[in-house]
Amino acid sequence: MVFVHFSFFQVPPYQDCVDFMAKNYPPGFSYPEFAPQFRAQFFDPEEWADIFKASGAKYVVLTAKHHEGFTNWGSPYSWNWNSVDTGPHRDLVGDLGEAVRNRSLIYGLYNSLYEWFHPLYLIDKKNGFKTQQFVMNKLLPELYAMVVRYRPELIWSDGDWEAPDTYWNSTQFLAWLYNDSPVKDTIVTNDRWGVGCYCKHGGYYNCEDKYSPGQLPKHKWEKCTSVDTVSWGYRRTMKMIELMNLPTIIEDLAYTVALGGNYLLNVGPTPDGMIPPVFEERLRGVGAWLEINGEAIYASKPWRIQSENTTVPVWYTSKGATVYAILTAEPSTPTVQLLGPKTSNATKVTLLGNPTPLYWSPVRPDAGLVVLLPELPYSPGRAWTLKLDGVQ
Amino acid sequence: MVFVHFSFFQVPPYQDCVDFMAKNYPPGFSYPEFAPQFRAQFFDPEEWADIFKASGAKYVVLTAKHHEGFTNWGSPYSWNWNSVDTGPHRDLVGDLGEAVRNRSLIYGLYNSLYEWFHPLYLIDKKNGFKTQQFVMNKLLPELYAMVVRYRPELIWSDGDWEAPDTYWNSTQFLAWLYNDSPVKDTIVTNDRWGVGCYCKHGGYYNCEDKYSPGQLPKHKWEKCTSVDTVSWGYRRTMKMIELMNLPTIIEDLAYTVALGGNYLLNVGPTPDGMIPPVFEERLRGVGAWLEINGEAIYASKPWRIQSENTTVPVWYTSKGATVYAILTAEPSTPTVQLLGPKTSNATKVTLLGNPTPLYWSPVRPDAGLVVLLPELPYSPGRAWTLKLDGVQ
Amino acid sequence: MVFVHFSFFQVPPYQDCVDFMAKNYPPGFSYPEFAPQFRAQFFDPEEWADIFKASGAKYVVLTAKHHEGFTNWGSPYSWNWNSVDTGPHRDLVGDLGEAVRNRSLIYGLYNSLYEWFHPLYLIDKKNGFKTQQFVMNKLLPELYAMVVRYRPELIWSDGDWEAPDTYWNSTQFLAWLYNDSPVKDTIVTNDRWGVGCYCKHGGYYNCEDKYSPGQLPKHKWEKCTSVDTVSWGYRRTMKMIELMNLPTIIEDLAYTVALGGNYLLNVGPTPDGMIPPVFEERLRGVGAWLEINGEAIYASKPWRIQSENTTVPVWYTSKGATVYAILTAEPSTPTVQLLGPKTSNATKVTLLGNPTPLYWSPVRPDAGLVVLLPELPYSPGRAWTLKLDGVQ
Amino acid sequence: MVFVHFSFFQVPPYQDCVDFMAKNYPPGFSYPEFAPQFRAQFFDPEEWADIFKASGAKYVVLTAKHHEGFTNWGSPYSWNWNSVDTGPHRDLVGDLGEAVRNRSLIYGLYNSLYEWFHPLYLIDKKNGFKTQQFVMNKLLPELYAMVVRYRPELIWSDGDWEAPDTYWNSTQFLAWLYNDSPVKDTIVTNDRWGVGCYCKHGGYYNCEDKYSPGQLPKHKWEKCTSVDTVSWGYRRTMKMIELMNLPTIIEDLAYTVALGGNYLLNVGPTPDGMIPPVFEERLRGVGAWLEINGEAIYASKPWRIQSENTTVPVWYTSKGATVYAILTAEPSTPTVQLLGPKTSNATKVTLLGNPTPLYWSPVRPDAGLVVLLPELPYSPGRAWTLKLDGVQ
Repeated sequence: MVFVHFSFFQVPPYQDCVDFMAKNYPPGFSYPEFAPQFRAQFFDPEEWADIFKASGAKYVVLTAKHHEGFTNWGSPYSWNWNSVDTGPHRDLVGDLGEAVRNRSLIYGLYNSLYEWFHPLYLIDKKNGFKTQQFVMNKLLPELYAMVVRYRPELIWSDGDWEAPDTYWNSTQFLAWLYNDSPVKDTIVTNDRWGVGCYCKHGGYYNCEDKYSPGQLPKHKWEKCTSVDTVSWGYRRTMKMIELMNLPTIIEDLAYTVALGGNYLLNVGPTPDGMIPPVFEERLRGVGAWLEINGEAIYASKPWRIQSENTTVPVWYTSKGATVYAILTAEPSTPTVQLLGPKTSNATKVTLLGNPTPLYWSPVRPDAGLVVLLPELPYSPGRAWTLKLDGVQ
Repeated sequence: MVFVHFSFFQVPPYQDCVDFMAKNYPPGFSYPEFAPQFRAQFFDPEEWADIFKASGAKYVVLTAKHHEGFTNWGSPYSWNWNSVDTGPHRDLVGDLGEAVRNRSLIYGLYNSLYEWFHPLYLIDKKNGFKTQQFVMNKLLPELYAMVVRYRPELIWSDGDWEAPDTYWNSTQFLAWLYNDSPVKDTIVTNDRWGVGCYCKHGGYYNCEDKYSPGQLPKHKWEKCTSVDTVSWGYRRTMKMIELMNLPTIIEDLAYTVALGGNYLLNVGPTPDGMIPPVFEERLRGVGAWLEINGEAIYASKPWRIQSENTTVPVWYTSKGATVYAILTAEPSTPTVQLLGPKTSNATKVTLLGNPTPLYWSPVRPDAGLVVLLPELPYSPGRAWTLKLDGVQ
Repeated sequence: MVFVHFSFFQVPPYQDCVDFMAKNYPPGFSYPEFAPQFRAQFFDPEEWADIFKASGAKYVVLTAKHHEGFTNWGSPYSWNWNSVDTGPHRDLVGDLGEAVRNRSLIYGLYNSLYEWFHPLYLIDKKNGFKTQQFVMNKLLPELYAMVVRYRPELIWSDGDWEAPDTYWNSTQFLAWLYNDSPVKDTIVTNDRWGVGCYCKHGGYYNCEDKYSPGQLPKHKWEKCTSVDTVSWGYRRTMKMIELMNLPTIIEDLAYTVALGGNYLLNVGPTPDGMIPPVFEERLRGVGAWLEINGEAIYASKPWRIQSENTTVPVWYTSKGATVYAILTAEPSTPTVQLLGPKTSNATKVTLLGNPTPLYWSPVRPDAGLVVLLPELPYSPGRAWTLKLDGVQ
Repeated sequence: MVFVHFSFFQVPPYQDCVDFMAKNYPPGFSYPEFAPQFRAQFFDPEEWADIFKASGAKYVVLTAKHHEGFTNWGSPYSWNWNSVDTGPHRDLVGDLGEAVRNRSLIYGLYNSLYEWFHPLYLIDKKNGFKTQQFVMNKLLPELYAMVVRYRPELIWSDGDWEAPDTYWNSTQFLAWLYNDSPVKDTIVTNDRWGVGCYCKHGGYYNCEDKYSPGQLPKHKWEKCTSVDTVSWGYRRTMKMIELMNLPTIIEDLAYTVALGGNYLLNVGPTPDGMIPPVFEERLRGVGAWLEINGEAIYASKPWRIQSENTTVPVWYTSKGATVYAILTAEPSTPTVQLLGPKTSNATKVTLLGNPTPLYWSPVRPDAGLVVLLPELPYSPGRAWTLKLDGVQ
């Protein structure tokens, strides 16, 4: 549930790269020449893993290789362009994996298929992807080696959109992954394995970045999004207004789970290897909210209805016969009206975090209820959950 | 009310300097050689001033020169060791001053008397401060020039503790400042003008850093403190747990004002010139709280009683006949008991931000009241103010 | 005849690398991180080619790839580790080739088979060279591409000594080179194609570095040596005493040619791309000497006798019926005795650079002559050539 | 006799500074920010002094402070802008002085009065030199401290040309220097102490740089010149053709001494602290020539006639009754004609380096002689000296 874009490409942010370099570096200084500045000297995997654990996340996904091709492990197929040969001089993938797994978190690896600058890829591209020099000499040997070495529970594939899956040899790789690889019994993957593939094929669907379906999808899916709304990687120039605040995150989480998706929240550590305090605060804030409200999230399923907005916005989830109504705003009055649930005499309503049953009364004989709320406890996430038993 | 420690000495934090340099720089690399890394390339004084304004601050104090001697303006007495000759290549003192004053904020300058490394200072020190080479050739010419050029409303003096005021020539300088300088009619200063001077002489008293008097001081005073509890300057390695959260800041502010002090809250911008989002969030949080509760803070005076803690911690301030009781925690019941105020029939109680008068009843005939609180509005600062009229 | 070791590995000299780095770089800074410091910003191929031309050289050999694996051209198999992606940002091999060929000089490329740090090579090595991952994925594709792209007249192979030619696939590569490649009609190679190969197989023999045979070799050979006796690449710390002076070079040249070898003299340009003036002076000095004495060098063949040392050291070469005696020291008397040549009445002796026939007389009826020298012209190379016609 | 321009300002050469920085550094990078790149890490004063001694020099002058104001010693008046605080982190003036004096060489210090960038100087300049802030706060305290600390035998003053000697307080300083300073009995100075002063006042005259009088000056003078004809400081881009070769230097030396001047030959070490081999070769070449011909140079006086050019260019010097004729080219015939000297029966002619008296005959009864030369020994300086005794 935590996504970590930690890589060389934060030095500097690519989006402003040309302009940034013109202002801050000698003319002719090129992208690869930044590598020594990605040092990760303060990177403490134990500390990171503590924060991720505290966020309530169940799995952590690290960028093993992003579009710039720099690997965060000592890939022999990416010589002098990886975190062991230059900059950090350590195995970031391995070190974080160990810390994360020691805390019973699931470990996934993000891997970009294409690479912005790889000369063999550019040759293949120029050849209309009729040749596979890049795939055969670089991509696949590296991917096989990565799986064998780190045994990720998840491969978060990306960068597939310029070429068909036949170019990437995705079918063969996935066949190996699910049938013969050392992780064949546990592996999960997403849907980015070739142009036209996403939202149609794959383990679960990511569809496009920050994909937000309007109604309940039929296939397993995941929403990946970023605390910094402007970037996946760390930006030295980020401002408060560009960041999601905690209530926005909680609402996004509630929405995603209500629609049956996993929620993957990204933070970008600094090139020094620190998680900026403002991100730590968001992650710990989510964890604090889940401490009380996690029952409505973990292992939940979508309910018959996903949401309504009578008194305040409400997102529904369910677990067995229990229904959860997550209120993502504070009602201005001490009552809240829910039109979706059908009540019975056996209906019981409580506020998560408070064992006292709440008074309620039906709205109509067949459906709906009005709940009398207690004084709502302080919640920096500005969201509270009503637990409804004995409703339909 | 906002203090900005923005200077070269954040590259790297001095406290860890020796160790940090051993790990990250070639042997023999010296402190001054960091200067080119203090670039301030993203420094936007308009943006800073917007944040300071939004924080509700009435005055802003910038480090014009810290202990390392690097001036944030083009001092001709600090050649090649100032922000115009190296690094930022701009007049930070002048640029921020303009932006700040355009928003009707008062502008103060921090100036360290002593300098850690200045060779003339070290000579004087070795001579038991019997010589004044440093004071005559560097300190005073520079200080005079700074006042004439930037006309600060406040000089926040520091670094006085190694030598007596007679060494610093403080008396003569202050005489000029208050009688003959271009700011003679408006200038304010603090109390750090020579060893033994603080808490005894000066415009207002800072006493030691983060000074927290136990009872009402007799002299005007100011509490200066820092969001980052570990450092005044920016640290690349700061963690969430080392930062004051908003409720802690608001309580500290309430305490300070209740004891008649000014509150000066410090943030350390990055060497790039950015105010980290987590600091921005704190400052804007203070501002949002003051939006509602500022009436109890600005232009207030200490009351007869400073605090009590019957139901919850309460800090008192006053303005004219009005008394303000700032509650820095949420009562667990809907009533709050105040033992200090003496009520009468004319007594009226309201919650700031809410015009409806509140029910109250006396505790004893001569003193004390119980107030029936409304549902307390959401306050990220976790503090609310009762306004008491007609009490003594 | 001019060898140019121009590469990344001069930053810093490898021999002192560990110590140098400890003193001048942060701990943990690694070899590849020097790449951005090899800038070649002053590299002017026209100027280099002018100097090489002026040296009297007939061919120029440039390091296309040295042991560190950094290619001086944009090899797609050496991504981010070549002169186009980093540092110089130009095609050094191509640019120098064009300038050199425009001056009718022959162009050769040095290529190291092994690479100190390549992870695939290190894997193969660990496997006792039973695997060929490095050869198949890196070495051969790159070598083929280099030949096709730059069409060198000479491949100066090196770095073969750790593995047999069967590991390097040398036989197949050479078969292609001589039979099918675009340079099959012109290509020349040396003898470093596998451990045990040198001095036994190959186009011509280099044997070990600075190889100096004691008597006339039976196979074509070449002596490669360096003006800087301590290093092939540029050293910032070189001192005059470590450099060959001009007379030493001329004597070495005369010796090599007398024994039927080619002479390949190396200079190491600076990482900035300059040929240090002291090397330029040596090269131009050789050229000035060849201006007068080249007749005895170019297209010459070894003579019946290679040398003698009666009056002064003498090295013999021949062209058709003409014999040349190169004196590599100035005789202390105005006569010189040569015991090798057999004279006749038709014997004619001149000093190169002076058309006037010289007086001579036989030493014995069957062999030897004494030549009366003119005043010897100023020669910074301290060597003069007697041309002997009508001798045997 | 050796002048060493060793300073920060070689990084980069000032003349191309603007252009060089535009190409090689980020925009906004300023001149002082180069300081950390002047490292002198290979500087070995013993080695330097060995070379200077071997050059035959009698005195060595080092740039203690050049126009950029950077002092090569730890001046407390030039804080953070000297070789102890930054870059080399050592006392270059002191270290070289000790090595030089240990070899019985005289030690002089070059000092620039004005400074290109000093803000106090620029203020004084703007004030038409009516104020003396720079002189009082920086120049004079520093100069006094330098003399007291290093006790130079020579002060080579420079950079005087923008202001009158009254601005520089030259008269007072020189009065102190010659009457009261610790070097009052030994000190020598030149003539650059105020605009209009040079070639008119001072210890000896330098007049302009590379000043070459057409006839015998009346006052003691010195010619200062540089092996690199284009620069006083080291240039990374220097080429052979821009350097004086040895014969040119020897001729210049002979000319200078014949006209009664001292000869001060400059070399520019690298920012690393190395004397480039090509400069070392020139200096040792001068020393080798002086080994034989020094008798005509050291402690010599101008003769009645300074030069003639009958057979070849000849420069005359004298010592007591002995006259020296330095031939700066090799005659094309074995005789040389000198028209200046008046011979007698007692006249005796020898070639320095060869004790055998030479045959000579008068040209006319009253003046002139023809000398029969021996075979001239090899002289890389291309200059030989005839010693004439018993001439007038």
